[in-house]
Amino acid sequence: MISKNSIAHQDYFIQLQDSICKAIEAADGKARFLEDKWERAEGGGGITKVMQQGNIIEKGGVNFSAVHGTVSPMMLRALELEKGEHFFASGVSIVMHPHNPLMPIIHMNVRYFEIKDYTSWYGVGIDLTPHYIVPEDATFFHNKLKAVCDTSDSSYYPKFKEWADNYFYIPHRAETRGIGGVFFDRLDVNAKNETFLKNLGESFAGIYTHFMQKNAKLPFTEDQKKWQLLRRGRYAEYNLAYDRGTRFGFESNGRAESILMSLPPVTHWDYNPDIQEGSSEAFTLAHLKKGISWISA
Amino acid sequence: MISKNSIAHQDYFIQLQDSICKAIEAADGKARFLEDKWERAEGGGGITKVMQQGNIIEKGGVNFSAVHGTVSPMMLRALELEKGEHFFASGVSIVMHPHNPLMPIIHMNVRYFEIKDYTSWYGVGIDLTPHYIVPEDATFFHNKLKAVCDTSDSSYYPKFKEWADNYFYIPHRAETRGIGGVFFDRLDVNAKNETFLKNLGESFAGIYTHFMQKNAKLPFTEDQKKWQLLRRGRYAEYNLAYDRGTRFGFESNGRAESILMSLPPVTHWDYNPDIQEGSSEAFTLAHLKKGISWISA
Repeated sequence: MISKNSIAHQDYFIQLQDSICKAIEAADGKARFLEDKWERAEGGGGITKVMQQGNIIEKGGVNFSAVHGTVSPMMLRALELEKGEHFFASGVSIVMHPHNPLMPIIHMNVRYFEIKDYTSWYGVGIDLTPHYIVPEDATFFHNKLKAVCDTSDSSYYPKFKEWADNYFYIPHRAETRGIGGVFFDRLDVNAKNETFLKNLGESFAGIYTHFMQKNAKLPFTEDQKKWQLLRRGRYAEYNLAYDRGTRFGFESNGRAESILMSLPPVTHWDYNPDIQEGSSEAFTLAHLKKGISWISA
Repeated sequence: MISKNSIAHQDYFIQLQDSICKAIEAADGKARFLEDKWERAEGGGGITKVMQQGNIIEKGGVNFSAVHGTVSPMMLRALELEKGEHFFASGVSIVMHPHNPLMPIIHMNVRYFEIKDYTSWYGVGIDLTPHYIVPEDATFFHNKLKAVCDTSDSSYYPKFKEWADNYFYIPHRAETRGIGGVFFDRLDVNAKNETFLKNLGESFAGIYTHFMQKNAKLPFTEDQKKWQLLRRGRYAEYNLAYDRGTRFGFESNGRAESILMSLPPVTHWDYNPDIQEGSSEAFTLAHLKKGISWISA
């Protein structure tokens, strides 16, 4: 039996998926999300929604999943838990790759996890990966996240911003994936945090449609397009080599096409590309660092 | 102090790198390998040789490295060794991505590893990843490898072919990376195996220039090119998520651009692409399985 609380969260995530897809479709104006329902042999399943070749979005996915089953000894060890028989995990995962190199890639994952009759928690990650870092855009993004955090608890933003800097990090490049955002896991399930989770989830559409309206029609050069394709390589490196959601998906025998909807549509890996000193590419690289504050009053 | 045996192997690998680069350049007829020497802060370094935009090779790398240093407790655990203070590791790593989708990707890694005053071993992996599996080409490749193996020991090919099937495998896709080849690790260092290692290393140029001559000018369609870009996605998935050489490189603070020369120049990830029943794409997928024998008398 799946708990009432699990079902309530699952229902919420299905609604969130639906509302985000509608907002992205409206802002894109051309492509629709195609829907694939899938079932997991061991329990549960999901709804994968993918958009390809829109006006603005080259490839984007909004995945809902709710899986459950028996807790394995490996899972107990990985989660550092003392006991547990039955788990339930549900959430929404989003990645958007735009055509325009002057528009950022965005990612969000909101999740609820429960070990029956024992414990439950929330986790969220939202981060922005501009191909070119533009301080004004970075400030808009972080100000929005801080405002959502501050509504619930003024200690949340600084803590979860730092966590994101550490989480969305590519060690072999000594670079952050992008300009970060917020990340947390194992946040207590209570009324305050449920509101917080929902506020974060519901902030997504407004944040990204802002960039869809502001940046999607900016003119760009061929060199800027090339740079975008190289930066997408870093995105693929992070997701395949480090991302814990991807690893968890692989190890729990998830649906590969759903997990990997996050990978960029077209990616280039050139050997050791030249970066001109003083260029906006060099500016971007110099700001793919932990600990930068993008907040402005 | 690095042992005499280490230096002898290092010198051999430098020669092997040089002779393979010359053979590939001659067969390509246009591009030259560019050379980057690098040093590792903790000891040793390497020579990375990369070719881009040749007549036949779109991107290819032939890397030599020889690194040494103090054995860490993590390394002892990873290698399941009881003791060891100083290690030396040297080898040559190659990946070739051709323009033509009807030409296979090839990979080889030959390596020597020594723990000073304790143990040493050889390791080799050679595998072929055709975008389209053609039985005639697969048989040519495996017959060549078997012939090299049989010269040293008739038990080697069956054993190391099976090892390659298991090693070059993408669990989340339930696919082998390509048609396999041979793989082994921890092979005793002795005169017989030294000859075997050298014979394998020296077979590389003949094998791949055969495909450069036979397949590089075959006419291909736009759909075949698209399929190649999708198959390259699988190659990137394998290398970033599973390949132990890549992981070892990341964890030992190796030079990222050298390690990742293996990644394809241009890669596509489409969501859930359609495969027509009875097509050569479907034939390929059906043969990306362990345990297929490609040998013919």
